[in-house]
Amino acid sequence: MTEHEVSGSRAAVRRLVEHPVFQWTIIGVILLNAVVIGLETSSGSMDRYGDLISTVSWVTIAIFVVEIALRLYAFGWRFFRDGWNVFDFLVVLIALVPSAGSYSVLRVLRVLRVLRLLSTVRSMRLVVGALVATVPGMASIAALLGMLLYIFSVMATQLYGNIDPEHFGDLGKATLSMFQITTGDDWAAVVRPATDAEPSAWGFFILYIVLATYIVLNLFIAVAVEALDRETEESNEQLASEMEEAMDDSTAEVLAAIADLKAQVASLETRLGD
Amino acid sequence: MTEHEVSGSRAAVRRLVEHPVFQWTIIGVILLNAVVIGLETSSGSMDRYGDLISTVSWVTIAIFVVEIALRLYAFGWRFFRDGWNVFDFLVVLIALVPSAGSYSVLRVLRVLRVLRLLSTVRSMRLVVGALVATVPGMASIAALLGMLLYIFSVMATQLYGNIDPEHFGDLGKATLSMFQITTGDDWAAVVRPATDAEPSAWGFFILYIVLATYIVLNLFIAVAVEALDRETEESNEQLASEMEEAMDDSTAEVLAAIADLKAQVASLETRLGD
Amino acid sequence: MTEHEVSGSRAAVRRLVEHPVFQWTIIGVILLNAVVIGLETSSGSMDRYGDLISTVSWVTIAIFVVEIALRLYAFGWRFFRDGWNVFDFLVVLIALVPSAGSYSVLRVLRVLRVLRLLSTVRSMRLVVGALVATVPGMASIAALLGMLLYIFSVMATQLYGNIDPEHFGDLGKATLSMFQITTGDDWAAVVRPATDAEPSAWGFFILYIVLATYIVLNLFIAVAVEALDRETEESNEQLASEMEEAMDDSTAEVLAAIADLKAQVASLETRLGD
Amino acid sequence: MTEHEVSGSRAAVRRLVEHPVFQWTIIGVILLNAVVIGLETSSGSMDRYGDLISTVSWVTIAIFVVEIALRLYAFGWRFFRDGWNVFDFLVVLIALVPSAGSYSVLRVLRVLRVLRLLSTVRSMRLVVGALVATVPGMASIAALLGMLLYIFSVMATQLYGNIDPEHFGDLGKATLSMFQITTGDDWAAVVRPATDAEPSAWGFFILYIVLATYIVLNLFIAVAVEALDRETEESNEQLASEMEEAMDDSTAEVLAAIADLKAQVASLETRLGD
Repeated sequence: MTEHEVSGSRAAVRRLVEHPVFQWTIIGVILLNAVVIGLETSSGSMDRYGDLISTVSWVTIAIFVVEIALRLYAFGWRFFRDGWNVFDFLVVLIALVPSAGSYSVLRVLRVLRVLRLLSTVRSMRLVVGALVATVPGMASIAALLGMLLYIFSVMATQLYGNIDPEHFGDLGKATLSMFQITTGDDWAAVVRPATDAEPSAWGFFILYIVLATYIVLNLFIAVAVEALDRETEESNEQLASEMEEAMDDSTAEVLAAIADLKAQVASLETRLGD
Repeated sequence: MTEHEVSGSRAAVRRLVEHPVFQWTIIGVILLNAVVIGLETSSGSMDRYGDLISTVSWVTIAIFVVEIALRLYAFGWRFFRDGWNVFDFLVVLIALVPSAGSYSVLRVLRVLRVLRLLSTVRSMRLVVGALVATVPGMASIAALLGMLLYIFSVMATQLYGNIDPEHFGDLGKATLSMFQITTGDDWAAVVRPATDAEPSAWGFFILYIVLATYIVLNLFIAVAVEALDRETEESNEQLASEMEEAMDDSTAEVLAAIADLKAQVASLETRLGD
Repeated sequence: MTEHEVSGSRAAVRRLVEHPVFQWTIIGVILLNAVVIGLETSSGSMDRYGDLISTVSWVTIAIFVVEIALRLYAFGWRFFRDGWNVFDFLVVLIALVPSAGSYSVLRVLRVLRVLRLLSTVRSMRLVVGALVATVPGMASIAALLGMLLYIFSVMATQLYGNIDPEHFGDLGKATLSMFQITTGDDWAAVVRPATDAEPSAWGFFILYIVLATYIVLNLFIAVAVEALDRETEESNEQLASEMEEAMDDSTAEVLAAIADLKAQVASLETRLGD
Repeated sequence: MTEHEVSGSRAAVRRLVEHPVFQWTIIGVILLNAVVIGLETSSGSMDRYGDLISTVSWVTIAIFVVEIALRLYAFGWRFFRDGWNVFDFLVVLIALVPSAGSYSVLRVLRVLRVLRLLSTVRSMRLVVGALVATVPGMASIAALLGMLLYIFSVMATQLYGNIDPEHFGDLGKATLSMFQITTGDDWAAVVRPATDAEPSAWGFFILYIVLATYIVLNLFIAVAVEALDRETEESNEQLASEMEEAMDDSTAEVLAAIADLKAQVASLETRLGD
């Protein structure tokens, strides 16, 4: 087999794996696999249709293995340059590890195969890309929120650890309680024992709620502003190019009139030269 | 009766159904019908004023039937081209189906007649149109949220189904529990049994809350950005047309000055030609 | 007393009531009155300092009466043309009605005197004006939300009134329960009895939560877009005037050059004419 | 030691404290100190590693003292002109006050040392600066919210203080209950006793929820609009400078053409002059 033949068959395989029908088939298999994983959690359906479910499960995994193998053959080592490909490879790899014994936690990770939808459907890839792109813009504010949570958790442990050991007994419990207060879920019940024993605790917790709400709000706004800024930049660029085109037209018109005048003066010059 | 007479009476009916007084009357009837439907739920008022309520109810339905019949006559088959008309037709049709026996669920749907306000009041129609128009823009992010919900529900069933069967016993219960956690309602109480038995569950649920909050936030922002973008586009177009007008004025002024100069040179030319 | 003297004393009183020192004094009296109203709710402080509190209360009301009388004298009937003035007048009037007997509910309304801060502090007036101005822009969406609430409340009464009479027994209870679900407070506990008896109720309530959240979100966005639009319009106007100025400068420069050229041609013409 | 030598050594110290390696070391020490403060809250880890933790704690404080001393020496009295420096100074000072006896509350404040991250990490400083800068813009709306809270708390005390003394017994309790209602946490449970005794209370509390939500929403929007406005201004300025550059180019081109024409006319003039 010559090198040319290899690359020829590689190109054929690449055409295959990039064909829309192939990709829609894979999306269908991913969805079928998602349903099967859901059914596997139900002991009722496993009792009745266990054999069928297991068979379909193994067939879908076999299809995934063949698909990854084809893509590996088509793209060679360049396959691993794209993060999404590496993701697909790992997810399928997990499916092949025996789930018995100490690897049983891997069984839980199998549902991550559903995430292959993200890498396979183009619009999903774009959305995830956009979501990940906004993360750095909020890193500083998220760190600030974490710092606030840590400081108030330490203080709550020192101040209310003895009064209400259930919620603030150690730093771990206090951090979880403060996180719950941050989400606004049932916070009045969480702080009740501490505030009943020491009314000044109201000031502590209300200060935390106001500060945390304000920082979370600014976290949200940072994400929104970034998203809007991208849109504004785009529409401003469009506006600028539209205006510049209009300006170029106007300049061209004026220059044409001047050129016309110049020709007139030149003809006058020629006549004088006569 | 000639064809001309028919189209003449059709035009008259159309003028009638499109007349503001007719439309405001229908809006009044819809509101009256809404009140009646509300009163029908109260056994107290049904005992005392049952006959009156039934009478008013049937009169309003009769008015709806006549109105739809008039609009059908006025517009013919084109009536069904507008989705809102089809909606009105179906809502009135439901009112005519006997509510006894196996159709009793239709009785519940009668309250949908209140939705006729959406099709009849113009500003409502615009608002609903705008709300529906933003749906496609959030489809990808909503799908992502659904995927996250499914993956974490499956994992919660596998990991905590035995520990806390009430909340995570099967995939259905787990999905409802995770949905409740997504809305932030009483999530600490939902996860308490699982986290008490296995403290590592805190990591699982907090990861889910952070991811789900982030995706919901981006869902909100996607809607807001779309709405703002429409406004920005409009105001940018206005700005552009304003600027182009100013530019056209300026260009016209310059061109007039050049034309004036040209005339001057032309008169010079004529004099030289003498 | 001549008419001129009257208008002279009126002008003097107007200068007085519009003087910053007078206005700051009134703001101080409003704040003092607010503190007194707060103290009056405490039986402890009333027992000990009741006489002092009553005295201060009556002195502040006397000051309000004198102030309103001065402003009435200064502005005459035009006083009632400004809504804020009417508001001040009514609030002070309530203070003068005897609180005993059947008018005791007016006693509760006395705290509205604190709202005089809104009419007296200029920046507060602006904020309230801006808040009220955004109301019409959200009227349609608010009506849509009200309609959704009504439709689902009627349906909930019909479907779950017998199953869970505590939450959905009549239309009033059902509306309050659905409002609570709209605010997201403890909704899982509200729907629990209905969903335990009829699991399909999950679909009903989740549909409502998704629809209501979506409409509330759009209500928020409508307010935000209006606020942003005002800002964008302003900054666009500024941009437009800046650009037009630059364009005028540029046009003037070009026209000056053409005028210069014209003069040159004119001098040429003169020379030829010689 | 001459003055020149002093300022020479000062400059050397300043170079040291401004060196990135020095600053990253301090950030590391702050993080280590944060961990130590966390460990000090755990009696378990104090029992086992108490000596080590105390030693590390004192070493980190010693490093802070030396660092502040170096910065004080390097910058002299100008050190106190920067608010962040004053903050660092106070935080370290608190660490040196003996924590025994009546000063034990200072022990709780030691966790504020973690806040030195804000003053030391540049991006944190910027974020905190931006957060603080948006506060004045929301002062009026925050005051409005406070006024609403106060008015409704006074009214709730007067109206429902006897019915439900637990939640509305005095102004303090009522204010806390209304604050809890504002955050939306478990509000239905808070108002239940009052609404059970007096159904009209539903109107009171729902009015408060709607007003408070509307004001909080506008508080959020005020912050968002301010943030977006800054961005819009920036991108508009960029657009304006881009457009003005394009306009200048266009003007220069036209002026060059006119100048060219002028030269032509001038040469014509010269020839005529011959």
